[in-house]
Amino acid sequence: MTIEGQDTDFVRPVRLGMVGGGKDAFIGAVHRIAARLDGCFELVAGALSSTPEKAQESGRALGLKPDRIYGSFEDMAKREARLKDGIEAVAIVTPNHVHYPAAKAFLKRGIHVICDKPMTSTLADAKRLAKAAEASSGLFVLTHNYTGYPMVRQAREMVEKGALGTIRVVQVEYAQDWLTVEQTNKQADWRTDPARSGAGGATGDIGTHAHNLACFVSGLRVERLAADLQSFVPGRQVDDNGHVMLRFAGGAKGMLWCSQVAPGNENNLKLRVYGDKGGLEWHQENPNYLHVSPFGEPPHVITRGGAGMSGTVAPATRIPPGHPEGYLEGFANLYKEAADAIRSHQAGKTSMGLLPGIREGLDGVRFVDACVRSSAKKAAWIELE
Amino acid sequence: MTIEGQDTDFVRPVRLGMVGGGKDAFIGAVHRIAARLDGCFELVAGALSSTPEKAQESGRALGLKPDRIYGSFEDMAKREARLKDGIEAVAIVTPNHVHYPAAKAFLKRGIHVICDKPMTSTLADAKRLAKAAEASSGLFVLTHNYTGYPMVRQAREMVEKGALGTIRVVQVEYAQDWLTVEQTNKQADWRTDPARSGAGGATGDIGTHAHNLACFVSGLRVERLAADLQSFVPGRQVDDNGHVMLRFAGGAKGMLWCSQVAPGNENNLKLRVYGDKGGLEWHQENPNYLHVSPFGEPPHVITRGGAGMSGTVAPATRIPPGHPEGYLEGFANLYKEAADAIRSHQAGKTSMGLLPGIREGLDGVRFVDACVRSSAKKAAWIELE
Amino acid sequence: MTIEGQDTDFVRPVRLGMVGGGKDAFIGAVHRIAARLDGCFELVAGALSSTPEKAQESGRALGLKPDRIYGSFEDMAKREARLKDGIEAVAIVTPNHVHYPAAKAFLKRGIHVICDKPMTSTLADAKRLAKAAEASSGLFVLTHNYTGYPMVRQAREMVEKGALGTIRVVQVEYAQDWLTVEQTNKQADWRTDPARSGAGGATGDIGTHAHNLACFVSGLRVERLAADLQSFVPGRQVDDNGHVMLRFAGGAKGMLWCSQVAPGNENNLKLRVYGDKGGLEWHQENPNYLHVSPFGEPPHVITRGGAGMSGTVAPATRIPPGHPEGYLEGFANLYKEAADAIRSHQAGKTSMGLLPGIREGLDGVRFVDACVRSSAKKAAWIELE
Amino acid sequence: MTIEGQDTDFVRPVRLGMVGGGKDAFIGAVHRIAARLDGCFELVAGALSSTPEKAQESGRALGLKPDRIYGSFEDMAKREARLKDGIEAVAIVTPNHVHYPAAKAFLKRGIHVICDKPMTSTLADAKRLAKAAEASSGLFVLTHNYTGYPMVRQAREMVEKGALGTIRVVQVEYAQDWLTVEQTNKQADWRTDPARSGAGGATGDIGTHAHNLACFVSGLRVERLAADLQSFVPGRQVDDNGHVMLRFAGGAKGMLWCSQVAPGNENNLKLRVYGDKGGLEWHQENPNYLHVSPFGEPPHVITRGGAGMSGTVAPATRIPPGHPEGYLEGFANLYKEAADAIRSHQAGKTSMGLLPGIREGLDGVRFVDACVRSSAKKAAWIELE
Repeated sequence: MTIEGQDTDFVRPVRLGMVGGGKDAFIGAVHRIAARLDGCFELVAGALSSTPEKAQESGRALGLKPDRIYGSFEDMAKREARLKDGIEAVAIVTPNHVHYPAAKAFLKRGIHVICDKPMTSTLADAKRLAKAAEASSGLFVLTHNYTGYPMVRQAREMVEKGALGTIRVVQVEYAQDWLTVEQTNKQADWRTDPARSGAGGATGDIGTHAHNLACFVSGLRVERLAADLQSFVPGRQVDDNGHVMLRFAGGAKGMLWCSQVAPGNENNLKLRVYGDKGGLEWHQENPNYLHVSPFGEPPHVITRGGAGMSGTVAPATRIPPGHPEGYLEGFANLYKEAADAIRSHQAGKTSMGLLPGIREGLDGVRFVDACVRSSAKKAAWIELE
Repeated sequence: MTIEGQDTDFVRPVRLGMVGGGKDAFIGAVHRIAARLDGCFELVAGALSSTPEKAQESGRALGLKPDRIYGSFEDMAKREARLKDGIEAVAIVTPNHVHYPAAKAFLKRGIHVICDKPMTSTLADAKRLAKAAEASSGLFVLTHNYTGYPMVRQAREMVEKGALGTIRVVQVEYAQDWLTVEQTNKQADWRTDPARSGAGGATGDIGTHAHNLACFVSGLRVERLAADLQSFVPGRQVDDNGHVMLRFAGGAKGMLWCSQVAPGNENNLKLRVYGDKGGLEWHQENPNYLHVSPFGEPPHVITRGGAGMSGTVAPATRIPPGHPEGYLEGFANLYKEAADAIRSHQAGKTSMGLLPGIREGLDGVRFVDACVRSSAKKAAWIELE
Repeated sequence: MTIEGQDTDFVRPVRLGMVGGGKDAFIGAVHRIAARLDGCFELVAGALSSTPEKAQESGRALGLKPDRIYGSFEDMAKREARLKDGIEAVAIVTPNHVHYPAAKAFLKRGIHVICDKPMTSTLADAKRLAKAAEASSGLFVLTHNYTGYPMVRQAREMVEKGALGTIRVVQVEYAQDWLTVEQTNKQADWRTDPARSGAGGATGDIGTHAHNLACFVSGLRVERLAADLQSFVPGRQVDDNGHVMLRFAGGAKGMLWCSQVAPGNENNLKLRVYGDKGGLEWHQENPNYLHVSPFGEPPHVITRGGAGMSGTVAPATRIPPGHPEGYLEGFANLYKEAADAIRSHQAGKTSMGLLPGIREGLDGVRFVDACVRSSAKKAAWIELE
Repeated sequence: MTIEGQDTDFVRPVRLGMVGGGKDAFIGAVHRIAARLDGCFELVAGALSSTPEKAQESGRALGLKPDRIYGSFEDMAKREARLKDGIEAVAIVTPNHVHYPAAKAFLKRGIHVICDKPMTSTLADAKRLAKAAEASSGLFVLTHNYTGYPMVRQAREMVEKGALGTIRVVQVEYAQDWLTVEQTNKQADWRTDPARSGAGGATGDIGTHAHNLACFVSGLRVERLAADLQSFVPGRQVDDNGHVMLRFAGGAKGMLWCSQVAPGNENNLKLRVYGDKGGLEWHQENPNYLHVSPFGEPPHVITRGGAGMSGTVAPATRIPPGHPEGYLEGFANLYKEAADAIRSHQAGKTSMGLLPGIREGLDGVRFVDACVRSSAKKAAWIELE
């Protein structure tokens, strides 16, 4: 236990383009910081908005060269693919319905894609994208960013190594409150518009994160579910609260709650996993701590960088224990690993490591699709497609 | 905010008998401390065990006079009813299946009953007991003790007064870990034996508490539910984990999780209620704090005895803020209020106040019954009977 | 780990009298509940107020027989000592300046004394009382009630057994906020009047608790200190905030903060002890948890009744882990142990066990005296007398 | 309350050099990430180690051009000052004793300095540096990074606006455990060597942070102190634990504890401030929450980005509430503001805003100096020079 920092040895930064993420966007700015944090990417091109002036204005604000500011992702994909120093990877940070066409445009040109979640707004698109990715020489990374937190990695490894025994119960929840009342702003608008977000509201926006986290840590896949979705705010077209019962392959059971109408919850993603030998608990809002309870022993805490943390997790942290890392650092871990994966791939050796990709993307869209179908059948149990 | 204590002005203590609660019992000792804490009861008779020697030994250990130690509750009911200074009330703290016959024996003689939960081990018994209570001049108090916590009362009152607006979502959970592995001791034995505990295991033992708490605070009744119950420990005859989705009268929805196989959870009863104007959260394991989040305002904490606590709640506390009260004090509140109710009743004025009784008991047994029926139908949605 | 309760086997309750504790008192009510909780005492006599009508009224309110209600402690001591079924013990719960004369009156008649802290209002009185106790056949118990908490006992035992190695640093604080502004009520009045409380204000009222707790757990005695005391509220005659640096015998150092003007602190007594092998932390406001940090290992939590709790601590708890015990239960532990000590003493075998008595009382008054003297010398370092 | 991200509009990044921060350094890596996070700086030159090969190796690892890798800060200062595109600012991240000569070398050439704390290793150096800064056209920024946390800014503004009334008490502590036992590694070596770290050990390394934070938030300066410093680990030449009593200008009093031998404390910097109208509390290890307790009202929490946060604080956050920001983001705030200050200064308008600089640096070194002098006089009270 000493205080040592680490940053990444120099490798030429990956040339990055961005689709979406213009003024007033949320997640685009997050992706840019994440890409910048470890110095592994250089943003050189962008189709930052579907509105031409906004695309220009946003590109200039980010210091892009004028000829690398594009009015559409199609233009960008075509031209960048032909440039000698064209982008090597693209970050797609648009509303969900654009994920598929944009990703396809770059993948078919061999440009690596780093795409925000959910992978697509429909299951059909997800399946098409899976094929496009298979046919491409480019990598596809899905930013299920919560898997980038070191203590989530620690949890996953402990479960995998049997520290909890056979998993019996998974409790996961993701609660927010910002949609408690009707909202009219850019973020609320598209996230509550089924044409842009997909048929799931809270389910698609945050339920997918909860589902992904539960599966990532437990190592289990959801086979069946019963979902009781609701739009509590009058006039809202998509669910803003979802109660879901889960059955996992192998016999574990779970509950998932996602809500955007739960006052007092800012971004309360919480996971608890219980097996016949122990339990663990992790809270996104205070993410540097993993609470571990071996059955019959005093509960203990593994801290990021502290005693008991696995050596395999260490590369996902930058600073000593007690110096909190947060959301951006977890997100940046995916970017750093994407850069590593891209460099390895360019060197002929493809390895995604723990990076979420097509499989996780498909699972997530299947989850949303199943929730919506179940809820339409009065919350009946259904199989995931 | 000053430091003042309070204890109860003298009224002659209520003469109390006890059925069950002999050596090795858990809840009997709790009832005795609760009865003693505020000086409102005097334990004078007991049928403390169905095993004669144990009944004798336990009675002597409690300082009962020899002629007030009984071998059966029937004997006790008959004789005490005839004594000039016979018991005025009886505490029934046996395994669940004995609740009904014992309560009936005393009620039919006009002796007030303070009964542990769940009210009975079957729904049929519950209905019979409801009739017996109706026909009796005695009161029936059900010790859903968590309703005795001051901050639970505070929560209830705030919801009732509209502080949260229209209730939308109720999340309640009650997790323990002591049955994670097979146990063979008195407590585990009867609680996992359907003949004695009823068809519900965790559902009946702790799920009923969670259900009761959710209804008490929200003021809502459960209309429909879907329950996925499980016995994770091989050979166990009743559920040790239950996932339940709830629909309340009026449109609110909820989830209830009860588990006795969740390592790291000692007695983790937690309630969260969300309305269109705010949310609240309460944890049994740190019960002196109520977390309140009016939408759009900073979250705040109402502490037992502190600023913002309602005056109507104050009589349920004894010591200043920061001097923690716990499980026994909450339990004792029910006893104190039972004594008050008995004295009022004797004076011709019946008022149960917030005390749980037959209605809550019936609701609890209906809840367990519905969970078991739903789970048997592959967790289908069903109405509560 | 199972759920079992325990209460105390029957022994004839100790006949108890009380001095002080009439209407509007705080700590008298606490003592009565503590005495009642485990059924080990029966309150049969009282000199509950120095105001005759109030003494009468308070005695009747507590159900005392008219001839056992006294107008002064002297009367009570004299008469009770002569009664065949006179009190065996007396609880002294008056303002501090009465502790000495009252205790003396009972001790000299061989009646056991259970006295609230600080032992006396002056060091001279403390020394006199020590002599009176030595000369008496009665026991003297000082209710430094925080030593009654099970997890405080656990901490003490762990330190004693070397779990932390050699103790280096002790940090203790006791902060409240009720005297942030001027108060005029019974509790505030005497506690801020040096004639009744002694020369120390916060120091005597709560600083002594902090000092006692630090010594009890660390096993160390304070040798020297430097105290910077202050009365922040204009016109207040005693300190309402004290900063103290401590040097313990053996080389450990510490800091003690006591304050009654720290808004947001209800009864925030907190102890941290650090040695060369580990550290521990305990919070009175959430007292069922002991946080333990062996150096180089993940920190863990020992819970009341949970894994890792010492068997010697178990008798100081009544209910299973997760069912919180609090202030009254901790206080009741001292009463239960006092009853045990009295019964043993009557049987010819004197053992105080962990009960605080004269030695702790003297140490506490010495601490207050030293704080006041140091502060008067511009917070110079001084030896404890 | 909506979810919006923000990053900084494009301004040409400031060209940055770095002194120190080669392989195995801790704080150099932190500075680089902080400089990179918001895209406001471009690292173009470095004298990263006093060992020539290490300087080369470290420079290459960071992607510096060969001719911008220097063997000494003197060389770098001289040459960069003459380059057309030479560095505009330099980050000094060496052991403390090098801060003064390095800062002087750049300041005298008008190159802006961003220097790690404490400002210098001796008070004499601090005074000389103050003069050098006064004579320079360059800015001097001291990275007391904890002032960069949004909720620390919130606290400071609330105190300034009178939310707590007149400040009475300031309790601050900074505890770590990594030096509990003897350590032999780069970080421990220089930090426990008085020639490199200065006469203060824990006092200089972390005590200065605590002192700075207390003053920054309270708006008060320490006038007198009494410090009891100790080296608990045998053979250690500087203090590893310090207890300090503080008197602030205006009458407030405080305590400061700094320790590097407190097992279980990773980087536990905690501040509490109390006035006659309220109190507040902030914990570095969970820094997104500010606990506020107006006297007589329920305590509430202001969250980063949440309700009640001041608009002036908002620019210091990047992501919505509930998405935790941590140590690096707080540090990056100072870098972003340094870039702003540099650009403004270049435009003829000098404003340091909340950035710590010479004054804070001098105060910090005076604090350490006073602690060491006081402790040498048996912890006597002394004035700050």
